[in-house]
Amino acid sequence: MINEQYKAMLGGKSVIRELSEYATRRGAQIGYENVFDFSLGNPSVPAPRDFTDAMVDLYENGDPVAIHGYSPSLGIPSVCATIADSLNHRFGMDYEGRHIFPTTGAAGALSHAMRAVTKPGDEIITFAPYFPEYQPYVNGTGAHLTVIPADTASFQINFEAFEAALNPNVQAILINTPNNPSGAVYSTQTLTKLAAILETKQQEYGHDIFLISDEPYREIVFDGNTQPYPARFYANTLTCYSFSKSLSLPGERIGYVAVNPKATDADLLVPMMGQISRGTGHNCPPSSIQLGVAKVIDETSDLSVYETNMNLLYDTLTSLGFDVVRPGGTFYIFPKALEEDATAFCMKAKDYDLILVPSESFGVPGYFRMAYCIDTEKVKRSIGALERFVHEQYGK
Amino acid sequence: MINEQYKAMLGGKSVIRELSEYATRRGAQIGYENVFDFSLGNPSVPAPRDFTDAMVDLYENGDPVAIHGYSPSLGIPSVCATIADSLNHRFGMDYEGRHIFPTTGAAGALSHAMRAVTKPGDEIITFAPYFPEYQPYVNGTGAHLTVIPADTASFQINFEAFEAALNPNVQAILINTPNNPSGAVYSTQTLTKLAAILETKQQEYGHDIFLISDEPYREIVFDGNTQPYPARFYANTLTCYSFSKSLSLPGERIGYVAVNPKATDADLLVPMMGQISRGTGHNCPPSSIQLGVAKVIDETSDLSVYETNMNLLYDTLTSLGFDVVRPGGTFYIFPKALEEDATAFCMKAKDYDLILVPSESFGVPGYFRMAYCIDTEKVKRSIGALERFVHEQYGK
Repeated sequence: MINEQYKAMLGGKSVIRELSEYATRRGAQIGYENVFDFSLGNPSVPAPRDFTDAMVDLYENGDPVAIHGYSPSLGIPSVCATIADSLNHRFGMDYEGRHIFPTTGAAGALSHAMRAVTKPGDEIITFAPYFPEYQPYVNGTGAHLTVIPADTASFQINFEAFEAALNPNVQAILINTPNNPSGAVYSTQTLTKLAAILETKQQEYGHDIFLISDEPYREIVFDGNTQPYPARFYANTLTCYSFSKSLSLPGERIGYVAVNPKATDADLLVPMMGQISRGTGHNCPPSSIQLGVAKVIDETSDLSVYETNMNLLYDTLTSLGFDVVRPGGTFYIFPKALEEDATAFCMKAKDYDLILVPSESFGVPGYFRMAYCIDTEKVKRSIGALERFVHEQYGK
Repeated sequence: MINEQYKAMLGGKSVIRELSEYATRRGAQIGYENVFDFSLGNPSVPAPRDFTDAMVDLYENGDPVAIHGYSPSLGIPSVCATIADSLNHRFGMDYEGRHIFPTTGAAGALSHAMRAVTKPGDEIITFAPYFPEYQPYVNGTGAHLTVIPADTASFQINFEAFEAALNPNVQAILINTPNNPSGAVYSTQTLTKLAAILETKQQEYGHDIFLISDEPYREIVFDGNTQPYPARFYANTLTCYSFSKSLSLPGERIGYVAVNPKATDADLLVPMMGQISRGTGHNCPPSSIQLGVAKVIDETSDLSVYETNMNLLYDTLTSLGFDVVRPGGTFYIFPKALEEDATAFCMKAKDYDLILVPSESFGVPGYFRMAYCIDTEKVKRSIGALERFVHEQYGK
């Protein structure tokens, strides 16, 4: 019989996907260039030419039986070693290849990391605003997701609410920095304080609490800054990564979990993820793409457009009177809406062909997200529409 | 805390993988060309040149942002339509693109199909001999796998044992044809009888029973025959496929579930699989590979070597006095061992650098599997080793 649980989920469509589909339909009417589609976090810059060259070289000159052959169930050893080396020299870590578990993007990474360190009925804490897909990811493991209200002053962590929520059933903390949707980059101070609290609570509760750190935007940080590496602050850290944003490869489903060698049972966690894979049908990311990304491991696409776009939008929104925290990274900005009901606000914006995502599904009421991974030329053209919208609807 | 269930699984390594790793180590000692490694089902012939050309063309001439962009969560529509068209003209079906759910290989296909039509506690029936990974696939869903003893005369279905095992808790039947490890191709007669029994039992139990048909070897059928298409025989069929064998792309993780348009709730099942994906981190197979296989949808690698190898081995084994059913397809042969304990038999074979897989994990005692997806030249050289092994150990 068909599974009633999944059948009941059929209504639960992502708000972001729905808006993106509306933008596509509207584009068919008036030309997509005239729709200011800030809905979807799909990178707008091409993959590096070196990646394309590496893949063409593999296809043209490699042995097809080897390139397209089964990956070992814990990933291709040379690829794991390359990823470990890169993390070590960039962040002063001491990973070996056996601490790296290649996955189908960050979604695959998170689903393995969560299953490895929780069991059904456990509690996982995350911080608003948060990526809405965390809810189905956690539901899929049988654990429960608790969302800590946002610190809307900075979109760092609301530590008061966090400490009040901690309890012995909490087995994992899920963070996302740089953050989708706020663009916040967790600071050294934030990560230090978070680690100290978790160390104390591990002692108090007498069990490990794992930090699952979701970092697909790690390389998109503005003003010449960098993202402090969370695993440097806390031993029990599972770093979840995707090359989708740094190399503009979201559709290729390639990422990894990196297990901090200082974590409890560090040597067991990757083999355990291999076992988890067998039950979910994951069975490794594509072999050829594993080999391809390893060839350009320290490269990125030209990510500068995102900073250009952020500055344009931040200046515009500020001058229009929006309450907005300046993003430190990502390709998102998360201003406060001009009325309490963010969905009503975003519906009105549609009349100006501005596709904005209301904040409710991110766990914060009254805000909206703009994904500015689009051409700068279009961002510039959107400013007039933003001005008209705010002037006509809110008299500003 | 780390998950004790997955930790406890760490011992549970695949016998096939262990033997394959032994073969690799032994190859490092004496040269891999001297190890007659019949352990692993990794295709030995290259992907079609047209696939390589299609991929290079995508990389060189496509828009990288589009090629590597997110796939829609139910797959790239043009790819789904191409797959549907191909199945329709090959097998007289009437699929539309919306009945096709692209997956990361057959493992992804099976894990989605099982979750869509069972719930934890349900029973899924399969037939020995069966692919050992079915056990973790089913365990991952929370259902229970019941294995029907083999019909060792033909490796078709032991219907007597099957009918005795059927009960109202059975929600799905899992078949694999052409079969790994036996090489049996389920006949029109077998599929007709299976369908009739399931139709009767659906009526009797008052609920649907889904047939999950795992068909990665569909295109490897010998003697000019073809595999009768199971979904033609039974409406409630979910066809699970991988391009890993037909296009020699096992590492690229690309396959699909095809939902029979005549199945109950046929229009809901693909969207439900999209929801299931969100909880497992599956999130679509790689976009570029989806596009690539669609360009060569009706092609295969040159699969003729498998039939050549099968004939060599079948003739050799028969002349050596083995009890063996002639495979109708795949690249496996499944003879009866020359002593009751198949593991002991395979251990002795290792002394002749013959790597054979004992049958216990396939659900049948006393047999062994040879995967002959290797060069014909090596198969020929293995004959002497087989003869010496049988003569010296069993006096034949």
